[in-house]
Amino acid sequence: MATEKEVSGGLGLEWRVTVPEGSSVKMEPEPSWISRTWNRLVELGSKVRSNVSTFGKNVWKMGADSPRKVIHGAKVGGALTLVSLFYYLRPLYNGFGSSAMWAVMTVVVVFEYTVGGCLYKGINRAIATLSAGGLAVGIDWVASKSGEKWEPVILSASVFLLASAATFSRFLPTVKARFDYGVTIFILTFSLVAVSGYRVDELIDLAVQRIATIAIGIAIALSICILVYPVWSGQELHLLISRNMEKLADSLEGCVEDYFVKSEITDAKESSATRSEGYKCVLNSKASEDSQANLARWEPAHGRFGFRHPWKQYLKVAAAMRNCAYCVEALHGCINSEAKAPEYTKKHLRDACMKLSSDSSKVLKELSSSIKLMKRSKSIDALVGEMKNAVQELQNAFTSLPNHLTQTTASSPIESIEEKKNSNISIADGMALMEAMPLMTIASLLIEISARTQGVVDAVGTLATLARFEGIRNEKSSSRVQAEEQEDRTLQEV
Amino acid sequence: MATEKEVSGGLGLEWRVTVPEGSSVKMEPEPSWISRTWNRLVELGSKVRSNVSTFGKNVWKMGADSPRKVIHGAKVGGALTLVSLFYYLRPLYNGFGSSAMWAVMTVVVVFEYTVGGCLYKGINRAIATLSAGGLAVGIDWVASKSGEKWEPVILSASVFLLASAATFSRFLPTVKARFDYGVTIFILTFSLVAVSGYRVDELIDLAVQRIATIAIGIAIALSICILVYPVWSGQELHLLISRNMEKLADSLEGCVEDYFVKSEITDAKESSATRSEGYKCVLNSKASEDSQANLARWEPAHGRFGFRHPWKQYLKVAAAMRNCAYCVEALHGCINSEAKAPEYTKKHLRDACMKLSSDSSKVLKELSSSIKLMKRSKSIDALVGEMKNAVQELQNAFTSLPNHLTQTTASSPIESIEEKKNSNISIADGMALMEAMPLMTIASLLIEISARTQGVVDAVGTLATLARFEGIRNEKSSSRVQAEEQEDRTLQEV
Repeated sequence: MATEKEVSGGLGLEWRVTVPEGSSVKMEPEPSWISRTWNRLVELGSKVRSNVSTFGKNVWKMGADSPRKVIHGAKVGGALTLVSLFYYLRPLYNGFGSSAMWAVMTVVVVFEYTVGGCLYKGINRAIATLSAGGLAVGIDWVASKSGEKWEPVILSASVFLLASAATFSRFLPTVKARFDYGVTIFILTFSLVAVSGYRVDELIDLAVQRIATIAIGIAIALSICILVYPVWSGQELHLLISRNMEKLADSLEGCVEDYFVKSEITDAKESSATRSEGYKCVLNSKASEDSQANLARWEPAHGRFGFRHPWKQYLKVAAAMRNCAYCVEALHGCINSEAKAPEYTKKHLRDACMKLSSDSSKVLKELSSSIKLMKRSKSIDALVGEMKNAVQELQNAFTSLPNHLTQTTASSPIESIEEKKNSNISIADGMALMEAMPLMTIASLLIEISARTQGVVDAVGTLATLARFEGIRNEKSSSRVQAEEQEDRTLQEV
Repeated sequence: MATEKEVSGGLGLEWRVTVPEGSSVKMEPEPSWISRTWNRLVELGSKVRSNVSTFGKNVWKMGADSPRKVIHGAKVGGALTLVSLFYYLRPLYNGFGSSAMWAVMTVVVVFEYTVGGCLYKGINRAIATLSAGGLAVGIDWVASKSGEKWEPVILSASVFLLASAATFSRFLPTVKARFDYGVTIFILTFSLVAVSGYRVDELIDLAVQRIATIAIGIAIALSICILVYPVWSGQELHLLISRNMEKLADSLEGCVEDYFVKSEITDAKESSATRSEGYKCVLNSKASEDSQANLARWEPAHGRFGFRHPWKQYLKVAAAMRNCAYCVEALHGCINSEAKAPEYTKKHLRDACMKLSSDSSKVLKELSSSIKLMKRSKSIDALVGEMKNAVQELQNAFTSLPNHLTQTTASSPIESIEEKKNSNISIADGMALMEAMPLMTIASLLIEISARTQGVVDAVGTLATLARFEGIRNEKSSSRVQAEEQEDRTLQEV
């Protein structure tokens, strides 16, 4: 605000502005407003230049990191150039007339990054255009039969009612998830056709033309999207889940390691911060998982994914993983909180805690690679067993903790002899217990995390069954749930 | 699969299908395929009917719960009916010709639920249409000057390059958040104008017409959106944050209460389940908060919100709240886990735990109402002080816990006399400690939650400063951070 006034208002305001800044400024000769404005412009210029160069670097980095995004840009450009041929090739131009712009519009609006997105929009657009067009022609016909007086009333009322109802329907979760774009196009097409004022026979001609151009647009968009370096929503979801699971495993292990091993070396801590904060990706990716799963349902079979691949189950796996990540977050918070456990107590539980975290992490990593390769893991049951043993060991270490605490506090070099004399043992116990509290919380959270890891194991087991992962089934496995039994029954029947 | 084969394949497959089902089926006379198909159709019909009625009930319920959504539907219908007048009023029709359909299209596409969304789309559409149209006319002019041979090459190349670059730019976070729709319209308009094959003077006529109709469409959509029962993104965000904070407070208190007080009464537990799971709303609303904050930036001053209301700070408050909710989630997990602490240990910590949770909950509720009313809370510092006292009390209760454990295990009626004789005291301690572990974790998490509540207090304090909440500032307040000092300096300067 001050800057603006100064520039526009001139000398009158100069004093007001500079006075509260302090006396050191006043000692120098005041530069004229022209030179100050000039200086500001120069400053602004260099700021803009540096901003632009940072922006340019960011853009370049993004392009270099993910060439698929650059390719997507080129695909859209290519599709549009292809469509623009309809304007240059005269026979086509004469055939379709100005309707050809609908082809351009369709390509621009329908072309999405993933095949799923493209199919979702293409199919929605096609169905909505057809149904809305048909309905509108019907209503137009009825209106035209009912006399000149009633025609505009019927048409306006039908537009009002259908547009209102369709808009309202967009709030329904199912419609929102699957047909949101279709509803927009439905309203658009219906309104355009119903109120266009053409006669019905003209309308049908127009509709045929428009539908043909839209079909051409959809066909071009879809074929380029699918044939040239396709990006499949399903595959993206698949990779996202498996990558996130590995990050979660890494961060669980890294976070506990940081606490017990590297807590004194600050350098190492900083470098591992990125690793131990991988769980944040799991916490933040719900929205993108949901949308990928939604779009994946529109995709045909591709690569290793069949037509009815259980994409919903991926969301369940993700939910189980997120459940785990909440606990890792709390663990992270406890580890970085101010209250630190004394080193001698840490030592007592270190091995058991680290074993449990590394075992849980191994289970998650095994699941991640099982998903990635779409193979049932042979070693998962053994790993889960080991994790359960580690829980037991940690609980045992706990049971012997008070013993250990009494011993160590009694011989602890920290407490002065005078204090020791004054305090009775149970208060010393209490203090030691108080000090050990963060550690106990960490241990307890690790146990909870292992329980939630079991949840992930179950969800992945169900996924493996539903998606028919390769590999020999282990008969003794406890993690295969109802879904598998159902699946077996179906298999036997066929 | 079986069903399909059966219906189409007839008798030949009947045996295969029925055999594995068991022999009881075979004993009854086989119904003919006609009657079975009929039965299936009847079944299907009743299923469809019940589905439709459930759907209808859901729709009705949604409408009754949130009449604003119904009103939104009516608003869109009204706006479209208004636009369709352009077709019926002849003078206008003659003036704008078939361009009038652009008005319909604009209304359908621009009309969003919230004012922010509507403005975002309207402004994006206007700017994108103007800039792309201008650029395309310019390039058309250049192309037309460079001879018939080069014209299509220049046009195609420019479409390809601009469409590719613009599509790629949509991946940049800033562009994605603020100009995504604008970029789509830019590509669309540019391609349409550049390849339309009109001469430049015709183009300018066309452009003026189209821009006029689009402006009319935007004006109608915006004015109805803003004047008739407007829904403001900013206000929605404001209410969402304050409501979620209250839910978080409720669930924190409810969850601890359930554990310590009502754990024996199952009926009460079920009824309070909804209350204690309110934290889930906080965990799941990140996406909607982000989008509301994004849209709120486009809105003018409304109600109690100024033009540059600090919407970003709401996101920080939400992040601090979510941070808190992660811990509440972990707490919820610990409370519902299998390992239960024995009643006599629970009693020892009950009062301290419940006091802390209720104090933290009070702080959150006070903050929630402070946000809701946009007034600085007078009592917040006292409440935070009380919360800190409660943390201290809980820590004190801990320090005396071992003492208590030894006493209670020694006099515990559960252990048999023989066992007592065999075990030495430190092992009994260990067992008691082991049993008390869930309780200690809960206490420790409560302390962590209170620390994170402090984070929420700080974030709300900054919000109060930036948004200039009413009320006397408390000079001693420790929760007012740097931002306030900056703000003060700016105020003094002006």
